[in-house]
Amino acid sequence: MSYLGIDLGGTNIKGGVVNGAGEIVREASRPTHVEQGPDAIADGIAALVRELEQGETFEGVGLGCPGTVDDETGEVLCAFNLNLIHYDLRAAIRERTGYVIRLGNDANVAALAEAKVGVGRGAHSVVVLTLGTGVGCGVVLEGKMLTGYTGAASELGHMVIREDGYPCTCGRKGCFEAYSSATALIRMTKEEMERSPDSAMHAVAKENGGVDGRTAFTAKERGDAAGAAVVAEYVKYLASGVTNVINIFFPEIIAFSGGVANQGEALLVPLREEVAKQDFGRKYVKKFTRLVNCTLGYQSGIIGAALLAQDQ
Amino acid sequence: MSYLGIDLGGTNIKGGVVNGAGEIVREASRPTHVEQGPDAIADGIAALVRELEQGETFEGVGLGCPGTVDDETGEVLCAFNLNLIHYDLRAAIRERTGYVIRLGNDANVAALAEAKVGVGRGAHSVVVLTLGTGVGCGVVLEGKMLTGYTGAASELGHMVIREDGYPCTCGRKGCFEAYSSATALIRMTKEEMERSPDSAMHAVAKENGGVDGRTAFTAKERGDAAGAAVVAEYVKYLASGVTNVINIFFPEIIAFSGGVANQGEALLVPLREEVAKQDFGRKYVKKFTRLVNCTLGYQSGIIGAALLAQDQ
Repeated sequence: MSYLGIDLGGTNIKGGVVNGAGEIVREASRPTHVEQGPDAIADGIAALVRELEQGETFEGVGLGCPGTVDDETGEVLCAFNLNLIHYDLRAAIRERTGYVIRLGNDANVAALAEAKVGVGRGAHSVVVLTLGTGVGCGVVLEGKMLTGYTGAASELGHMVIREDGYPCTCGRKGCFEAYSSATALIRMTKEEMERSPDSAMHAVAKENGGVDGRTAFTAKERGDAAGAAVVAEYVKYLASGVTNVINIFFPEIIAFSGGVANQGEALLVPLREEVAKQDFGRKYVKKFTRLVNCTLGYQSGIIGAALLAQDQ
Repeated sequence: MSYLGIDLGGTNIKGGVVNGAGEIVREASRPTHVEQGPDAIADGIAALVRELEQGETFEGVGLGCPGTVDDETGEVLCAFNLNLIHYDLRAAIRERTGYVIRLGNDANVAALAEAKVGVGRGAHSVVVLTLGTGVGCGVVLEGKMLTGYTGAASELGHMVIREDGYPCTCGRKGCFEAYSSATALIRMTKEEMERSPDSAMHAVAKENGGVDGRTAFTAKERGDAAGAAVVAEYVKYLASGVTNVINIFFPEIIAFSGGVANQGEALLVPLREEVAKQDFGRKYVKKFTRLVNCTLGYQSGIIGAALLAQDQ
């Protein structure tokens, strides 16, 4: 009883054979070659399927893809960094391999993996927030991915938290993503560095070959006030979005991944304090949302896709 | 096969016997008498149950209550306007009537009714927003009320849409409710009336005995620019929260009720236009969220409570 999970990214296609316990038993990877077009991507996926088959027949194949997918029709509706617009990926893979794949958004299937076999195992409900270039998000309620009427739900990164605020890539202004992604943290860091020429952040950036999502945290650790101010500003906005998520879903767990989450407790401790101040619901309920980090790393994309295939 | 639905409010306790088709076959109401304390409220509910029984035994009894309830334990965790804090309402009603009631938040059960037998009948998913003193909200996903890990989920009114914005009753600043409730509309109307002494809103307010949620809409209808500006400001914020709801849940239907929703298409037409501008997901998905008004009126609270009891 093994399932194949595929994590389709802009650079690589990763695949893994996943057993009934949700563990990867063997895996492989190959370049995506976006520049060769949609059919070449499908060819690459099919080659990966054959490479991992090794004489075995999978019970099911699932695929996680960036952007918006429709698991009803099997279409990738839009995945800009893959150049896929209204592409019938299910048909393309069926033609090439015979498998009828299940299709999920990559952040959603990663959340499914964390909810079922990662940090959220056994939990009532899990929201995963990936603090990277953008803010990726997946919501799993009582074991079920939230995909909405269209397949495009769970886009918490595109919840406006500051009306008329900083422009977001989506066209709106003031989205959660525009304040809580690693990109936003780097912007806040650079702004504060301009205001504070004496800040230790300048030295930290020099040591690391430039400003990144760690600069302000490292400077703060060294006792730098300007670094601490950047972390506080970032945490304030993150806490605002996280408190929204609590008020909307009141999940058992909110789990973080992505670059900024690598700060671990240096991020989570001030975040929990700030959320505790904002969260009006805590006073009377006896159960609270736990804020923790994800545990599956890059494997969540593969495992989640395989779990999606299992859920047929 | 009939179920009893009870809508417990700060002024009245309304009850209705609901048949298998989700219709009220008979109903009754009595004053809540909050000032006499929790046990008197339970006495009132029990008396209503007996009044409506008329020799019949109900298959189940459900109750919708403001505030935060825990349907697992049967407790009302907090309902300020009823003075109920950690009150075991299920035990109190069982002692008095023998019925083991199901318990839901009033906005959530109202949404359940709209989703199952009201405007959302047959829809994949429904979010109800009640634009009244506050912004009440209920979310029904594939027939199931979203209540979260704690029973306190679906509080979309307390999603911050304007960081550091107008203070909300919940203690945070800039909540959706602080910009999209009837209370917020009245605040915006009064502010604009101060800025615009020549606005028709002054005459409209005089005719109706004061400023209310209709003042700006009526003035706009009469061609008043200041009234139109208030409506536009209100709709902008409402659209911001509604677009968030679409990005989060992408429901098939968002349905409005409450005082401001009585404006009907005078509200919905500009709202749909504003949401269309903000909603980045529309370009590639083929299905859209419909914005409409609720159809069940006050009956939604009673019917929803009965439907909750049915779902055992």
